[in-house]
Amino acid sequence: MNSFYYYNPTKLVFGKDSVSKMGNYIPKDVKKILLHYGKDSIKRSGLYDEVIEILKNNKIEVIELSGVEPNPKVSLVREGVKICKDNNIDFILAVGGGSVIDSAKAISAGVYYEKDVWELFTEGIELKRALPLGVILTLPATGSESSSATIVTNEETLQKLGLESDLLRPKFALLNPELTLTLPNKQTFAGIVDILSHVMERYFTNTTDVELTDNLCEGTMRAVISNAYKLLDNPNDYGARAEIMLSGTIAHSGILGLGREEDWASHRIGHEITALYGTTHGVTLSIVLPAWMKYVYKENIDRFVRFAKFVFHVDSNDKTNEEIALLGIEKFEGFLKDIKIPIRLKEEGIPYDDFNTMAEKCTGSGSIGRFVKLSKEDVVKILEMAK
Amino acid sequence: MNSFYYYNPTKLVFGKDSVSKMGNYIPKDVKKILLHYGKDSIKRSGLYDEVIEILKNNKIEVIELSGVEPNPKVSLVREGVKICKDNNIDFILAVGGGSVIDSAKAISAGVYYEKDVWELFTEGIELKRALPLGVILTLPATGSESSSATIVTNEETLQKLGLESDLLRPKFALLNPELTLTLPNKQTFAGIVDILSHVMERYFTNTTDVELTDNLCEGTMRAVISNAYKLLDNPNDYGARAEIMLSGTIAHSGILGLGREEDWASHRIGHEITALYGTTHGVTLSIVLPAWMKYVYKENIDRFVRFAKFVFHVDSNDKTNEEIALLGIEKFEGFLKDIKIPIRLKEEGIPYDDFNTMAEKCTGSGSIGRFVKLSKEDVVKILEMAK
Repeated sequence: MNSFYYYNPTKLVFGKDSVSKMGNYIPKDVKKILLHYGKDSIKRSGLYDEVIEILKNNKIEVIELSGVEPNPKVSLVREGVKICKDNNIDFILAVGGGSVIDSAKAISAGVYYEKDVWELFTEGIELKRALPLGVILTLPATGSESSSATIVTNEETLQKLGLESDLLRPKFALLNPELTLTLPNKQTFAGIVDILSHVMERYFTNTTDVELTDNLCEGTMRAVISNAYKLLDNPNDYGARAEIMLSGTIAHSGILGLGREEDWASHRIGHEITALYGTTHGVTLSIVLPAWMKYVYKENIDRFVRFAKFVFHVDSNDKTNEEIALLGIEKFEGFLKDIKIPIRLKEEGIPYDDFNTMAEKCTGSGSIGRFVKLSKEDVVKILEMAK
Repeated sequence: MNSFYYYNPTKLVFGKDSVSKMGNYIPKDVKKILLHYGKDSIKRSGLYDEVIEILKNNKIEVIELSGVEPNPKVSLVREGVKICKDNNIDFILAVGGGSVIDSAKAISAGVYYEKDVWELFTEGIELKRALPLGVILTLPATGSESSSATIVTNEETLQKLGLESDLLRPKFALLNPELTLTLPNKQTFAGIVDILSHVMERYFTNTTDVELTDNLCEGTMRAVISNAYKLLDNPNDYGARAEIMLSGTIAHSGILGLGREEDWASHRIGHEITALYGTTHGVTLSIVLPAWMKYVYKENIDRFVRFAKFVFHVDSNDKTNEEIALLGIEKFEGFLKDIKIPIRLKEEGIPYDDFNTMAEKCTGSGSIGRFVKLSKEDVVKILEMAK
């Protein structure tokens, strides 16, 4: 096990009545809030009215910034930063999924940075201060509701980059699984792939003496998979929605990676696909992860044997390690097919002529990934396998 | 899954060099610290000198209060409260195991309470303010290093009672597994029983739709058991010490109980044994838990079947549920025997004439436990089974 530092002070408020308790969790000295959200879906569901009512009752002035799109754009972030500075906003409330939360986090990071907020993403500048934010989650997927990270797209340079700091962990996350009952299947299951991917990026490691977190990772993956099948049968299953919502938070809270070297190559490759083609984040992962697995499994086959046995219940009798490992990957692909999420580039209509560009952009002058270090050439081969 | 609220802001600093980083985690405005510890073992190991050196380098004045014993006493807590008040102490540093940490937490709770600190334990008064504290852990067991609870014994009234508040979660916990390499076996393994018991009190529940936390609980128990066997073979195994230390923190962090009704009857019974006979906390649990299991398993046999299969790998082929459940309990007892921790009252020389007194003290005018509600008569029967 490696040394680590871990700090996650996000207050989790979970259950059907969580939003109604919001007044208890907004710091007492907050006077003016930026309400940040996506489209009109929170108005249709009644959530918007409930939030406005609570803020009014708490005598908090509200300035709104809506219009966050999937893969949040730095242009809207810049607009948010300007609004916060011009209006002395003292708290940001993000209502939505991971894109809204990531956009809010980027705004919160930008408010106290004297230059352009995008520099924080490109220059690796350590964040010194951030505006506090809170979250009402409507889509379990990114785990951004308690994570330290935000990922934003620059639509001019076609870069999708991340920024990480404990200052970006929300003060509170209100988690009401009922809000997810009406999600379209595609969002539910792309979210589920994202959740699984957050576990996998931590699970595939060469760090030894990590049996505890191995077990926690495997247990989380099994719970996500089994509840995904419950939601395939019945999207109105509150219990399964609750399990998926909590899994999403745990998966990216940091707990599952304690003391482990993490990989994150698949995310980096996926970001390049999104940057060029706007592909849904979870879908880029269902395309990249199986190809990545097939490319790297021989480097530490024991780990893939574990994955097959303890996540997908592969019976290891009379099989070689290679057969077991490959069966695990096959079962993972089978699961992705069952939940009807694309697993090949062609299913998304993505052409094959930009592999070099994508590989070059994500590896830069070095390599990506830690389970196996991947060069530009490796990334091209993985994309070839994902055709 | 039930609704829940969860907040755990303890900074975990884990690894061989964690203590040396302490200066980064003590709040900048701290001028005068109460250094709280047990006996001279931290002097023999060199830890005391290292701590004093760091505090000196950070220009922090130190007042010491040593002498914490296992099952910390309210008399020493009162002394600590007085020292803090008289000297304007602004931070408490606990160096030791769970007893030292619990004693420090009780002091931190008492400093801002105008009346006798013991009232906080007996009257169920909600804590409004507490002196901040930090922890250097030397014995993985109680999970107190990031938990919200403290348990203290009143040696006059022979009561062992708890107090809970998020204000009692330490600001930081420095976790260096190397400090545990020299622990005597009895402390190591009694600590391991305590860790397991914190998972079990959460695991045995009737709450449904908790597959995620079920898996996390089972995974933690399996990791603790397997690393316990590694330490039986080789007490110097750093990797296994690290796994046990992290398991202890996770087991009582609150994560494993999210959305679950928890039980805690076995702890309540165990506390009465300690209050009367001074029995080591972990040992009371290795005595009470198997008896409790045998007494309650029929009330929700499916849960005990799960426990047998997924914690102790009981092969369920050609067996009734009852056989599987009982085999699980038998395997748990077998594990406790393997690590040489007493599992019956007679092994500790505890007489059988106080069962009524103990049962009456812990059930009061009501019942204890939630998996199965236990009356005074039930508790007597469980103690009979633990003879």
